[in-house]
Amino acid sequence: MSRELVVIQGPNDPGLSKSIAKDLNALHVNVYKKVFPDGEIYLRIPDPSAIKNKYVVFVNTLYPEQNASWIETLLLANAIANINVIKTIAVIPYLAYSRQDKIFLEGEPISIHALLKALKANNVDYLLTVDIHNPKILETWGAGSYNIPASDLLAKEALHYVNKPVVIAPDKGAINRAKEAAKAINTDYDYLVKKRDKITGEVTLEPKEIDISGRDVIIIDDIISTGSTIALAAEKCRYSGAKTIVVAATHLLLVGNAYEKIISKGVKMIIGANTVNKKFSVEKVMLTDISKRISEKIKSIIGF
Amino acid sequence: MSRELVVIQGPNDPGLSKSIAKDLNALHVNVYKKVFPDGEIYLRIPDPSAIKNKYVVFVNTLYPEQNASWIETLLLANAIANINVIKTIAVIPYLAYSRQDKIFLEGEPISIHALLKALKANNVDYLLTVDIHNPKILETWGAGSYNIPASDLLAKEALHYVNKPVVIAPDKGAINRAKEAAKAINTDYDYLVKKRDKITGEVTLEPKEIDISGRDVIIIDDIISTGSTIALAAEKCRYSGAKTIVVAATHLLLVGNAYEKIISKGVKMIIGANTVNKKFSVEKVMLTDISKRISEKIKSIIGF
Repeated sequence: MSRELVVIQGPNDPGLSKSIAKDLNALHVNVYKKVFPDGEIYLRIPDPSAIKNKYVVFVNTLYPEQNASWIETLLLANAIANINVIKTIAVIPYLAYSRQDKIFLEGEPISIHALLKALKANNVDYLLTVDIHNPKILETWGAGSYNIPASDLLAKEALHYVNKPVVIAPDKGAINRAKEAAKAINTDYDYLVKKRDKITGEVTLEPKEIDISGRDVIIIDDIISTGSTIALAAEKCRYSGAKTIVVAATHLLLVGNAYEKIISKGVKMIIGANTVNKKFSVEKVMLTDISKRISEKIKSIIGF
Repeated sequence: MSRELVVIQGPNDPGLSKSIAKDLNALHVNVYKKVFPDGEIYLRIPDPSAIKNKYVVFVNTLYPEQNASWIETLLLANAIANINVIKTIAVIPYLAYSRQDKIFLEGEPISIHALLKALKANNVDYLLTVDIHNPKILETWGAGSYNIPASDLLAKEALHYVNKPVVIAPDKGAINRAKEAAKAINTDYDYLVKKRDKITGEVTLEPKEIDISGRDVIIIDDIISTGSTIALAAEKCRYSGAKTIVVAATHLLLVGNAYEKIISKGVKMIIGANTVNKKFSVEKVMLTDISKRISEKIKSIIGF
């Protein structure tokens, strides 16, 4: 599309930068990285003249190794800032620490503020992220930003595995995501609430309004970490009579035995996006490519 | 000294905060830390009301685990900034990433700038560090700062192991440190340079001007990482006829087999300061306590 745009592949790119560069007909550049014996990270953009006076996009995600990846991202932003570029667009598909987005208990940091301030201080002009835990955080960022939705893409992908599904959020917090996903595939949605049986007094987790008995279900969320929430939700959906269950969550961290935990509840497929830098060599994980959507947004930002 | 000052012990305090709090008659507060299963750090100041409307000092060093410790430090600064305090003084005795203090090769970040900007963005008012690699960096920090010297203390400590020593810097870069140390113990100093034997053409590393044959030597530097530089310097001093050799370096990272590498060159003792959070269970490492000097500086900053 233009020789004015360069796409830099950060060390923790989840396989997006090459597709984006191709979509935008832009030069693709790799970053040189090494780790010193004491553990410090060293970065260098090998051919800085190639990015001088250009629009620069860099892609670096923040999982795995959230801390090292954050530091790496700050160093990369600084390296770019030391060169005379027109505008720096950071593509950070998974923004680690974004769940600590407010003071839940006095004395806490707002971790995502702390780190976005750090990024801003290193001259990033625009931040592109994917399905951030709480999009309101971006309002405090103080520069251009956009949160690329993913729930709709995941829901469409899920249709390969289920028939006339209902979309279920594991808790009220994920209800907007369920709504978006349901809208994209023209179906209904609900979320799980605690219910008490009037006779036995037993407490269960059930869909608030919809009877899912005999229906296929898409359980939707933004992040799967240990998988406990999703495994419980799947178990409860099964208990409420769901037929086929698939899980759709944008950011698949899948820590430890999260995969086994979820699949053991009879989940047919776990669908995510390619937002974290993790390879899955398991049968029942399917990744949707988010790169086209990022490329389109970059086009509109730069005004090509 | 005052109820107006609180000293917070960060998770990576090398054992300084309690002494400082005691010296200043200040309240000492611990930070609660946990690591989530996915690797994110969570911090909380347990009793924020104790630090409200106070001068706050926090102590957190950046080795080991430079990346996690930097993130931790930003989160801690942010947590303090969320509380209404009078002034925040960060005591970061070892400032990781401070060796990447300029662009050596085009395309590099100035890593220490990237991270100091991040710290500044999280409302730290004053930065106290110890024997920073290049004190000029602090000029770009944009707020109050002070670099606490340590070479003189280390040299005085070294006098327990050597007689009428000469102070030797392993290279020209460490010459100012050697000068300071020599001045403190009223002796001479020099640095090692490459010399070519006029007859054999053999290149060796030797003191530039001083004949150290038969003399005790203190080899001085700021940081020992893998120990290669220091081990080579010790070997060369021995070759030049040095008698007893001790090594004095403020920040003892001593990565991998650095200790063995140095001691195997016949070094009698490695003297450092308590600036990194590492316990040494070896015979020939001796740590000088730097806390008094930090306390005195804090007094003068706050104006008690």
